[in-house]
Amino acid sequence: MIGGGILAPAGFRGAATRVGMRIADGDDLALIVADGPATAAATFTTSRFRAAPVDISAATVATGAAVRGIVVNAGCANCGTGSGGVDDARRMVAAAARRVGCPESEMLVASTGLIGSRLDIAGIEAGLAGIHPERGARVAESVARAIMTTDTRPKQAAARVTLPSGAALTVGGTAKGSGMIHPQMATMLAFLTTDAAIDAVGLQALLRDVVERTFNQVTVDGDGSTNDSVMLLAAGLVTLDGPDDRAAFAAALEAVARSLAQQIAADGEGATRRIDVTVTGAEDNRAARRAARTVAGSQLVKAAVHGADPNWGRIAAAIGRAEVAIDPWSLRIWIGDELTFAGDPVAFDEEAASRVLRGATVLLRVDLGVGDASGEAWGCDLSAEYVVINSEYST
Amino acid sequence: MIGGGILAPAGFRGAATRVGMRIADGDDLALIVADGPATAAATFTTSRFRAAPVDISAATVATGAAVRGIVVNAGCANCGTGSGGVDDARRMVAAAARRVGCPESEMLVASTGLIGSRLDIAGIEAGLAGIHPERGARVAESVARAIMTTDTRPKQAAARVTLPSGAALTVGGTAKGSGMIHPQMATMLAFLTTDAAIDAVGLQALLRDVVERTFNQVTVDGDGSTNDSVMLLAAGLVTLDGPDDRAAFAAALEAVARSLAQQIAADGEGATRRIDVTVTGAEDNRAARRAARTVAGSQLVKAAVHGADPNWGRIAAAIGRAEVAIDPWSLRIWIGDELTFAGDPVAFDEEAASRVLRGATVLLRVDLGVGDASGEAWGCDLSAEYVVINSEYST
Repeated sequence: MIGGGILAPAGFRGAATRVGMRIADGDDLALIVADGPATAAATFTTSRFRAAPVDISAATVATGAAVRGIVVNAGCANCGTGSGGVDDARRMVAAAARRVGCPESEMLVASTGLIGSRLDIAGIEAGLAGIHPERGARVAESVARAIMTTDTRPKQAAARVTLPSGAALTVGGTAKGSGMIHPQMATMLAFLTTDAAIDAVGLQALLRDVVERTFNQVTVDGDGSTNDSVMLLAAGLVTLDGPDDRAAFAAALEAVARSLAQQIAADGEGATRRIDVTVTGAEDNRAARRAARTVAGSQLVKAAVHGADPNWGRIAAAIGRAEVAIDPWSLRIWIGDELTFAGDPVAFDEEAASRVLRGATVLLRVDLGVGDASGEAWGCDLSAEYVVINSEYST
Repeated sequence: MIGGGILAPAGFRGAATRVGMRIADGDDLALIVADGPATAAATFTTSRFRAAPVDISAATVATGAAVRGIVVNAGCANCGTGSGGVDDARRMVAAAARRVGCPESEMLVASTGLIGSRLDIAGIEAGLAGIHPERGARVAESVARAIMTTDTRPKQAAARVTLPSGAALTVGGTAKGSGMIHPQMATMLAFLTTDAAIDAVGLQALLRDVVERTFNQVTVDGDGSTNDSVMLLAAGLVTLDGPDDRAAFAAALEAVARSLAQQIAADGEGATRRIDVTVTGAEDNRAARRAARTVAGSQLVKAAVHGADPNWGRIAAAIGRAEVAIDPWSLRIWIGDELTFAGDPVAFDEEAASRVLRGATVLLRVDLGVGDASGEAWGCDLSAEYVVINSEYST
């Protein structure tokens, strides 16, 4: 991992400014710009009640054409806003495209925040007219901060690899997401950049695969959202020479996405610790990931972790309802390194297990006993603070 | 609705005693006995990690043979207890059968409480040897209390109907369940009795149908459980004369089951109010019920209700991820009688909506705009108290 976040790869600039849609201080509008036409890939929420910007960006990416930038705001999701909201999103795209000097068809848009309120579109237009995209780590962090909602800290990651063919390739990214976070893309926005040269179809396949193993394995509260988007722009500066280079690029992309996913989990609303769940012995990888997500998303497991209570029965119960094949008689459950169940309950050091649960990152491991596949998921504990935050959000 | 709970119908007696497996004071072992051979039906958890008593009772009910009673304990789920737990459950069945004077194959068994701990089987055997099943409302309430875990109050219901053919028919029931409550039968036990005469196949079909619309529509925390069971015994005293009588019986059974389901929702762990969700305009009843469950189970909706925050966007987001057909442009959302969204946001009286959310029972209604089917679900708000309860349960 290196510094520089979303602007670590060559070929990108960024800018952020304050419109005032987010109540908290600081910037709430960001623009990410590629110096030239970039290949784009994206994955979006599976919600059937999705926001206007999602509809617009999904249509743009589906054409497979090159893209010049992404405009993002925080504080207002522009969702449930009817035809007026669609008009607002189009005006936001147009204003950003004017600023960049590209057609509207080359600008992606994303929004995050409260559902049902309208954008301050005049403010956005004024904001976009006045900003000047620049390079550098300081700017990347200002972009990372501008997309935050209830996040307590910005989320950035970047990786540089030397390809087997010899060239240096860079991937950068930033993400936001703290509540309404669940598998299949939650109220989570993630933006990724790379200097790699790759066609749109190949980039989309790669992104879909990486998102499946990373962002889709984060769960904070089981509430999938209306606005979730992961967007990836590739500047086309570094040639990928054959399958080995492609594999090295894929690994760097996954490392950045995984880091951002873990940062989202750790910063879940009200979270005091991150929960990393590893499932082994599954029938296939999909089942392993599903089981891991179910454990990471279980309210009772989350509450037990919060209370540092080594209550492995709740992990077993979550596995039981995950709708994946298990062998209850050879199921094994670990809290950290403590084996707590192996078909029968196992005598274990409860104090040691409780210490594991008090750590900043809690490792839970389950072997389903039916195969060789494995998977991971990331979540966080459930604190009374979560309830306080979410009882008072819109009022 | 009448009084008398599970002993309201003729033909049944009950008893309760204390073994000491539940930390809280009071009885924690109950026996429900039919005076003669009763027809039995039951539905069980869909968990793949299910408790020993569930395996045993499911096998007994599957034979279709007559049953004489049900033995239940609280404080220990007898789940995740390996082969020793299976032996314990069999000894519990044997002890209850000895007390009643019936073959072991005519006794059902259920347990609820902590996963992974072993039954105090010697205590249970001693307890069963010393109890004397009796009739009456006082006894029915002692049974209802003996099966409680984190429940704050006993749950009972009974209904008496005059059948079209002229006879009086009675249905009674009791249930427990407070946490680990979710659709598809959660940590919930429900026991139902009736004096109706009906064959086992017909009774099972009827029960399955009623459970689908009642107990399976309750959600407290999304955590389905290992021990959930609904058991129904029919004493065979009141003849059902044709389809009209059958329909009247079905209606009485559903009324009792629905009341118990609502009582479970209202007594969710940490709950301060019940949430009733009605979904209309759905493609089919199954989709309507699924959508209603998703809203009732949404952590963010539950937290918003707790904070009396009329944040209809969270209801829309829950509907969006429910994986049912919707028309976002004609979707309508009501909080009580306040229409808050109808394709576009609607100006509404936020103070009136907030008052609805502060009531003991909160009505949320959604019309999906794609069909004529409807469904209901019941849940409760999410309070900081829920987290406190569940951080400290086993330790």
